[in-house]
Amino acid sequence: MNWLDEGALYSSIGLFLREDLGRGDITTQSIIARNTRARGRFLAGEKMIVAGLEAAEEVFMTLDGEQQIEAFASDGEEIEAGKVIARTTGFADILLAGERVALNLLQRLSGIATLTNAYVRAVAGTEALIVDTRKTTPGLRMLEKYAVQMGGGRNQRFGLDDAVVIKANHIAVAGGISEAVRRAKEAVGHLHKIEVRVSNERELQEALKNGADVLLFEDLNVEELARLILLSREVSPAVKIEYSGNVTLESVRGYAEAGADMISIGAITNSARAMNVSFQMQQF
Amino acid sequence: MNWLDEGALYSSIGLFLREDLGRGDITTQSIIARNTRARGRFLAGEKMIVAGLEAAEEVFMTLDGEQQIEAFASDGEEIEAGKVIARTTGFADILLAGERVALNLLQRLSGIATLTNAYVRAVAGTEALIVDTRKTTPGLRMLEKYAVQMGGGRNQRFGLDDAVVIKANHIAVAGGISEAVRRAKEAVGHLHKIEVRVSNERELQEALKNGADVLLFEDLNVEELARLILLSREVSPAVKIEYSGNVTLESVRGYAEAGADMISIGAITNSARAMNVSFQMQQF
Amino acid sequence: MNWLDEGALYSSIGLFLREDLGRGDITTQSIIARNTRARGRFLAGEKMIVAGLEAAEEVFMTLDGEQQIEAFASDGEEIEAGKVIARTTGFADILLAGERVALNLLQRLSGIATLTNAYVRAVAGTEALIVDTRKTTPGLRMLEKYAVQMGGGRNQRFGLDDAVVIKANHIAVAGGISEAVRRAKEAVGHLHKIEVRVSNERELQEALKNGADVLLFEDLNVEELARLILLSREVSPAVKIEYSGNVTLESVRGYAEAGADMISIGAITNSARAMNVSFQMQQF
Amino acid sequence: MNWLDEGALYSSIGLFLREDLGRGDITTQSIIARNTRARGRFLAGEKMIVAGLEAAEEVFMTLDGEQQIEAFASDGEEIEAGKVIARTTGFADILLAGERVALNLLQRLSGIATLTNAYVRAVAGTEALIVDTRKTTPGLRMLEKYAVQMGGGRNQRFGLDDAVVIKANHIAVAGGISEAVRRAKEAVGHLHKIEVRVSNERELQEALKNGADVLLFEDLNVEELARLILLSREVSPAVKIEYSGNVTLESVRGYAEAGADMISIGAITNSARAMNVSFQMQQF
Amino acid sequence: MNWLDEGALYSSIGLFLREDLGRGDITTQSIIARNTRARGRFLAGEKMIVAGLEAAEEVFMTLDGEQQIEAFASDGEEIEAGKVIARTTGFADILLAGERVALNLLQRLSGIATLTNAYVRAVAGTEALIVDTRKTTPGLRMLEKYAVQMGGGRNQRFGLDDAVVIKANHIAVAGGISEAVRRAKEAVGHLHKIEVRVSNERELQEALKNGADVLLFEDLNVEELARLILLSREVSPAVKIEYSGNVTLESVRGYAEAGADMISIGAITNSARAMNVSFQMQQF
Amino acid sequence: MNWLDEGALYSSIGLFLREDLGRGDITTQSIIARNTRARGRFLAGEKMIVAGLEAAEEVFMTLDGEQQIEAFASDGEEIEAGKVIARTTGFADILLAGERVALNLLQRLSGIATLTNAYVRAVAGTEALIVDTRKTTPGLRMLEKYAVQMGGGRNQRFGLDDAVVIKANHIAVAGGISEAVRRAKEAVGHLHKIEVRVSNERELQEALKNGADVLLFEDLNVEELARLILLSREVSPAVKIEYSGNVTLESVRGYAEAGADMISIGAITNSARAMNVSFQMQQF
Repeated sequence: MNWLDEGALYSSIGLFLREDLGRGDITTQSIIARNTRARGRFLAGEKMIVAGLEAAEEVFMTLDGEQQIEAFASDGEEIEAGKVIARTTGFADILLAGERVALNLLQRLSGIATLTNAYVRAVAGTEALIVDTRKTTPGLRMLEKYAVQMGGGRNQRFGLDDAVVIKANHIAVAGGISEAVRRAKEAVGHLHKIEVRVSNERELQEALKNGADVLLFEDLNVEELARLILLSREVSPAVKIEYSGNVTLESVRGYAEAGADMISIGAITNSARAMNVSFQMQQF
Repeated sequence: MNWLDEGALYSSIGLFLREDLGRGDITTQSIIARNTRARGRFLAGEKMIVAGLEAAEEVFMTLDGEQQIEAFASDGEEIEAGKVIARTTGFADILLAGERVALNLLQRLSGIATLTNAYVRAVAGTEALIVDTRKTTPGLRMLEKYAVQMGGGRNQRFGLDDAVVIKANHIAVAGGISEAVRRAKEAVGHLHKIEVRVSNERELQEALKNGADVLLFEDLNVEELARLILLSREVSPAVKIEYSGNVTLESVRGYAEAGADMISIGAITNSARAMNVSFQMQQF
Repeated sequence: MNWLDEGALYSSIGLFLREDLGRGDITTQSIIARNTRARGRFLAGEKMIVAGLEAAEEVFMTLDGEQQIEAFASDGEEIEAGKVIARTTGFADILLAGERVALNLLQRLSGIATLTNAYVRAVAGTEALIVDTRKTTPGLRMLEKYAVQMGGGRNQRFGLDDAVVIKANHIAVAGGISEAVRRAKEAVGHLHKIEVRVSNERELQEALKNGADVLLFEDLNVEELARLILLSREVSPAVKIEYSGNVTLESVRGYAEAGADMISIGAITNSARAMNVSFQMQQF
Repeated sequence: MNWLDEGALYSSIGLFLREDLGRGDITTQSIIARNTRARGRFLAGEKMIVAGLEAAEEVFMTLDGEQQIEAFASDGEEIEAGKVIARTTGFADILLAGERVALNLLQRLSGIATLTNAYVRAVAGTEALIVDTRKTTPGLRMLEKYAVQMGGGRNQRFGLDDAVVIKANHIAVAGGISEAVRRAKEAVGHLHKIEVRVSNERELQEALKNGADVLLFEDLNVEELARLILLSREVSPAVKIEYSGNVTLESVRGYAEAGADMISIGAITNSARAMNVSFQMQQF
Repeated sequence: MNWLDEGALYSSIGLFLREDLGRGDITTQSIIARNTRARGRFLAGEKMIVAGLEAAEEVFMTLDGEQQIEAFASDGEEIEAGKVIARTTGFADILLAGERVALNLLQRLSGIATLTNAYVRAVAGTEALIVDTRKTTPGLRMLEKYAVQMGGGRNQRFGLDDAVVIKANHIAVAGGISEAVRRAKEAVGHLHKIEVRVSNERELQEALKNGADVLLFEDLNVEELARLILLSREVSPAVKIEYSGNVTLESVRGYAEAGADMISIGAITNSARAMNVSFQMQQF
Repeated sequence: MNWLDEGALYSSIGLFLREDLGRGDITTQSIIARNTRARGRFLAGEKMIVAGLEAAEEVFMTLDGEQQIEAFASDGEEIEAGKVIARTTGFADILLAGERVALNLLQRLSGIATLTNAYVRAVAGTEALIVDTRKTTPGLRMLEKYAVQMGGGRNQRFGLDDAVVIKANHIAVAGGISEAVRRAKEAVGHLHKIEVRVSNERELQEALKNGADVLLFEDLNVEELARLILLSREVSPAVKIEYSGNVTLESVRGYAEAGADMISIGAITNSARAMNVSFQMQQF
C-alpha cells in the first residue's frame, strides 16, 4: 500500500541532522572519549501506533553506516506503554548525535499515526475512508503522509501537480463551476479524475452535468450532507463523495454514516500531539 | 530580541513551495486564464497570537516579487477571531500557488506562539522564563523558535553546537558528573557556560563544586524542586536553575513559584495545534 | 492548456549556462571591450513550429536582468523560413555568453514541436490525440513535454509517481493482469485511473473485468487493433484506448482511424532533429 | 583517449532518476511485493555502436549498490540486432524504477555514437577527423561528447572556458580579425592555441599574419574550400584547418578530400535518432 | 578537545576536488593506462606541526573508497624535515587526481598549526591561552580552526551566532557601552557570556558595572594593558581578559605576562605560510 | 585581460556569509535597533595593490540589494597607507553582518596581488612573465587567480581539465617522456599545447623530438637553467620555457635573465600574508 520511495521519504534526513548538529556536538565531544561504545533503547511512554521507526534507523545510519539497530516493532503496529521499540548499539557519540532528530521524527510521526488510527476506528464498519489533506508541515509532507498510511488512513494529493481538485477559491476566481470543470477535463490527461467542491443542489447538478468524477462537500451538518449525497447518487450513481470540515472524533461516525466515501481531516497532520517516546543510553 | 536573520529563517521557503507545487498547479493552470488578477485575505478563525505573517509574505514574494501585501497585524500581536490579518493583491495563479504553504506556516507558527503565550501568562509575576527545547519539527527549528519568541518565550540552544548541556545520557556514558563538568569547562571557550542535569543533592554538590553555571532539574514534584533549588543557592548563590518535565498549564505556576529561573517545555513546539486561519479569494 | 509552472520549467537554466560557461568565456572576454553594446536576432532557417522562445529569453535574463528582448513570434506558432523570431539588445558579452544555450534549447524544442505537429496534422479529423511518453532526454522532461504541447500534442505521465500504467514488465513479474489491476485499484487514491497493457482478447477481458479504466495496445497492425478496440468497447463502452508501437507519419492515420483515443509516440521526443535557427549579431 | 572523469560524467544521474521517480513509482509499489527478485536484459533492436552502457549500470547502482550487472558488450563496440547487451539481476522494484532512465541514456548515446561512426567511416583513409561542437543537449554535454568518442569522433571545446575560437559574431562586434586575434593571443596563456573563422582570402591572410593557429571555414562548397586550404598552407604550412557547415553523410568525404584536418558536425549530437534498445524482465 | 564533527569539517572536500578536476584530468587520462597501480608518499620538507592529514586521507577516500592509506604521524604531532608522513597505495589516476587538493590542504593547515604552536610556546609557563579569530579564509573556517587546535591554540567564536562579542563598531553605532551590554544580557540566553571591547578606565567600569563577563582590550602597549587588567580585576575579580592587536612572536610573551587570559591573533589563520610538503609517486 | 565571469567568481559568497552568520548575528541583533542607518569605510593600513574590492561590494549586495557603495580605488590599483578605499551606506546590521567576510576577502586578495606585483616588478624589463600555479586555497581558486591578474601576474591552468602539463609523477608512472608526450598529443584536441617537465639534456631532447610545445624546468640554479634554455632553443627555436622552484624576490630576476618565458610561483597564492585593511563604522 505504501508506494513512496525511500529516496523521497528520507532525502532530508541529512539536512535535519545538520540543523541540529551545526558545527558539531560540543557537549558530547568534550565529555565522551572517542570510540566509547554504548547501547541505547527507544521506550514507549504510552500506548500508540508507532510510525517513523525506519526513519529513526535512517538517522543513525546516515551518521554511521556501521550502526546496529534491532527493532522490536514495525511501523504501523500498535504498541503498549513500556514497550522497548528498538535497541541500538554503536559509538556513544553517534547515538548522542542522532538521538534528538530520531526522537523528534518518531514522536511526531507516531502522533500522526495514532490520531489517524483513532479516526479510522471511529468509522469502522462504514464504507468511509479517512484521508489526509495538504495541511502538512512544510518540508515533511512525504513523511507525514507515510504516517497517515501507517495509521490506516489514505492519502489524497501529494501536491498541486498530481490531481485536480477545484475548490472554493478557484470557483470564486474562475466565475463558475461549469466552465471550471469543462476546462479541467480538457486540460488534464486521460489518467486523472476531476474533483470539485460544491455547496448546494444547483452546484452539484452543474458539476455532475459537466463530468465531475468526485464531489467535495465542506462544512455541513450530517443531515444536510446525507441529503446532498443521496441527491448526487441519483444524478450520477458512480460519483465519489468526499467530506471535509468540522470533523471531530465524536462527529466523524455521523459523517461516515451519512454516506461519504472519503472524510478528509487536516488535524491528523497539523494538530497531532507528539507521542511520549524516550531514548535511554548506557555504557557498553 | 529576535536575532535570527532572515536568510536563515526563510531559506527553506523555496523548498516548501516546490514540495507543494511539484511540476505545477494543474487545477489552477487548467481553469484560470493567465494574468487574471485577484485579491485574497487571511482571516483569523479564533483568538490567537499571530506568528508567521512575515513568512507568509515571503512565500508570495518568492513566487512573484511584484506581489502586494498589506498586513493588519504584526508577528507577536494578539488578535481576535474574525480579524482580517492581511490582504494580498496580485495574479490569481500566484495566490493559489502560495495559499497552502502560507497557511500551513501561519497556522502552525501561530499555534506555537499562542500556546507559548499561555504558559508565559500562567507564570506572570514570577521570575521564571518559559524556554523552548530542541523538540522542534525537523527542518523548522528556526521558524519554530522564532514563534516561541513571538509568544513571549525564550530560546534555549539552537543546536548541539552552540551551548553545553550535560544530560542524563551523557552522564550515564561518561561515568560521573564531576569528570563530565571538568572536561566540558576545559574544552569549551571562555564565552560559554556549562549546564548540567542533576537529580539529587549529591549530584548537585558535585556539579557546583566543579563549576557548573546552570543546573537542570527534571521530573520532580514542586516541593522537591523547591527544596533542591534552595540547597543549590546556598552552595552557589549565582547559579541558574532550569526545570523540565511534567509541566502543564495547570502545574507550571507551581514550578515557577518554586524558584526555577527557566522552565523548558517541549510541548510548545511539538504538540501545539494549528490555529484556525483561512484564506479567501475573490476576482479583482 | 499548459499547467507547467515556470519555476519547474526553467529551474535548470542556470546549470545549463554553467555547463557551457565554466570559468568564463575566454574568447569574448579577451576580445570584446567591457560594456560594448550589441544587437542580436534569432533567424529561422526553415519552416517550423517554434517552441523554446520563452526559454531562450530566460537564458539571457538569467545572465543579466536588464537584457531587452522583443519577440516576433510565440511558442506554438508556425513560422516560415527567413522569419526573424526575436531581437535582443544588450551587452555584447551577455549575448555571446547566452547564444549557444539559447539556440540549443530553441532548436531542440522547436524540433519536437514541429515533429509532434506533423503527427497531429496526420490524424486531423479523427478522434485520436497524439501523446508523448517518458522517452524524453534525462533532465529535460518538463521542457520537452512543454514542446509537445506547443506542437498540439498531449502529455501523458510526467513521472512514475503521477499515474498508474501497468506494462508488460510489471505483468511478467506480478504474475498476471487480474491481480495487478486489483492491487493497483486498491492502492491508489480516488483521483487516479488505472491503465493496463493488454495483448490479446483474454487479457483485455481480464483487465476490464477487474476495473481497468484505460487499455494500452502495443505493436499491432491496424486491423488487429481495430478488432480489439471493437471488442473492448463491447465489454466496456467508456473504456479509453491508447496505442503505441511502429507508428510513423505514414502509418499513424491508420491507427487513428482504427479507433484509438490516444496514440503515443516516443520518437517525437527522442528522435526529433534540431531545427535550423541562427543567431546573428552586430555592434550597436 | 577518454579523459572525462566519472564524477563529471555521471554526476547528474541522481537528478535524472528523481525526475522520473518523483515521489515514487506508484505502479510498481502497488503491484509488486517487496523483495521480489527479477532478471532483466537489454536487447539491441538494430545494428549500432553501443554507448551509455556504463551510464546504464550507474543508474541501477545509484538506486541499489547491491545490483548485479553482467555486460556482454563495451561502450564503443559495434553490435548486431538481436544482441543481448547486458543482463541485470536484482530486486524487481529497482529494475522497474531504473529501466526508463537507463534506456533513455543508452538509446540516445548509442544513437550519437552510431551516427558519429557513420561519418568517421565516410572519411576513412583521409586525414580528416570528425569532431563535435557545442550543439549538445543542455545538461548532457559530457555524456554526449563521451558518445562522440565512442563513435570514433574527436571532441572540440567542452565549454567557452577551455579554448579560444573566434567566430563570426565576435568579429562583427570586435570590428575586425586582426585586432581580435592580437588581443586573444595576449590574453590567453601559453597553453592554448587560437582558432579563428575566416571567410575569404583577405581574412585568411589577416588571421595568419596575426598568429592564428587554426582556421575555421564555414558554409563553402568543396572546390572553394580546397582553394582556400591550399592558399592557407602556402602562407603557413603548419596551420590546422577546421571545416563546418552543410555537411551530410554524402558530402563529408568531399570536404575531407579537400584537405580539412577537422570536420565539425552539430548534427551528430543534436539530430541523432534514438537507437532501438529494449529492456525485458522476468521473475526470478 | 576537538568537538568539530567530521561531517562539518570535510563537507566541502567534494567541491574542492571538483574545482580542481573540472571535466577531468586531461593529462593523466591521456597518458596513464587505466587500472595502473601506483604508490605515493607525503614527505615533509621542513620541521612542522602536521595538520590536515585526516583531510588529505578524506580527499583520496572521496575519489575512491578502496584507496589504502597508511599514516606515520597524527594531526597535531611535531615532525622533522625528511619524515615520510603517510604512504598511499591505489590507482595511479586517483592519486594524481587527488594529489594537489590533498597537498593544498595539508600544507596550509600544517602552516597554521605550526605558526599557532610557535605562539603557544612563546607564552609557555604563563596563564595565557592563544586563541584564534574570525579572520579565517572564507569557506575554510572549520578546517582552519581545527588546525589552530592542532597547534595547541584555542578557538573563539565559530560565527556571529554562537557568542556575543561587542566590538568598537557596535559601540559606535549603539551609542554607548552601558546600553549595549544591558541589551545583550537581556537578549541572549542563560548559556552565553558577554564579551565587550573597552579602551579605557571609564569604559571598563561601565562594562563591568553592567555585567560584562569578558573584557577585550585592543592595540595597547604592554604596560598600559597590565595597568588596565589590574584595575579590571579590582573591580571584578572573576572577569576574563582577552587582548588583541600588534602581537608578534617577539611581543606575545609580554602581553601574556601582563596578565591576559586569552591573546587572540588573526595572523595565525590569515598570514601563515604554507609548509613544504611534497607528494612523490612511483609505479607499483 | 580578465575573462573570468562574475558568476564563477562570486558564486560562493552566499556560502561564505552563511559560514560566518550561521543562525544570525546575535550581538548586533541584540544591541542595534532595526533600521538603524550607518556609514562604514574601508581604510588601507599599509601600501598595497588592492584586489577584492568588487568581491567586498558583492558581499554587501548579497545581504541587501539596496546597499550603496562608493569605491575610491579599483581592483589592481596601487594605494598608499591611510587611503579610504571605499565608503558604504546602509543599514547598520547589514554592514556589521558583512564586515568580516568582506575584510577577509579584501585582505587576502590584496595580499596576493601585492606579493605578485613585487615579483612582477622584480623582473621588469625582462621578457619573463610571473605566473601562478594550482597551489591555491581550496574553494578560492578563481578569486585567487583573479588577484594574481590584479597584481600583474598571468594565470596558468585553472584545473586539471583545461591544459596538459606532464609532471614528474606522471613520468614516473608512465615510464618515460617520449611515450607520454606522444599519447598526450594524440589525445587532446587541436586547441591545446603540450607542456612537459624535463630535468636534463636527454629528457629535453626526447620531449622536443616528440612535439612538446612548452618545457618546464624545476629546482635548478640560474646557470644550469640558462644552459638548458639555450640548448632547448637550439633544438626548437619556438619552444616556450617555464621555470619553477626556489624562486624568491631576490632570486627571481636571475631566473628571468636566464631566459625563462614564464616563472611560476606557488607562494604568491599559498603564502601571501593578509594586508592590513580595517572597516570603521559610525552612526548616520
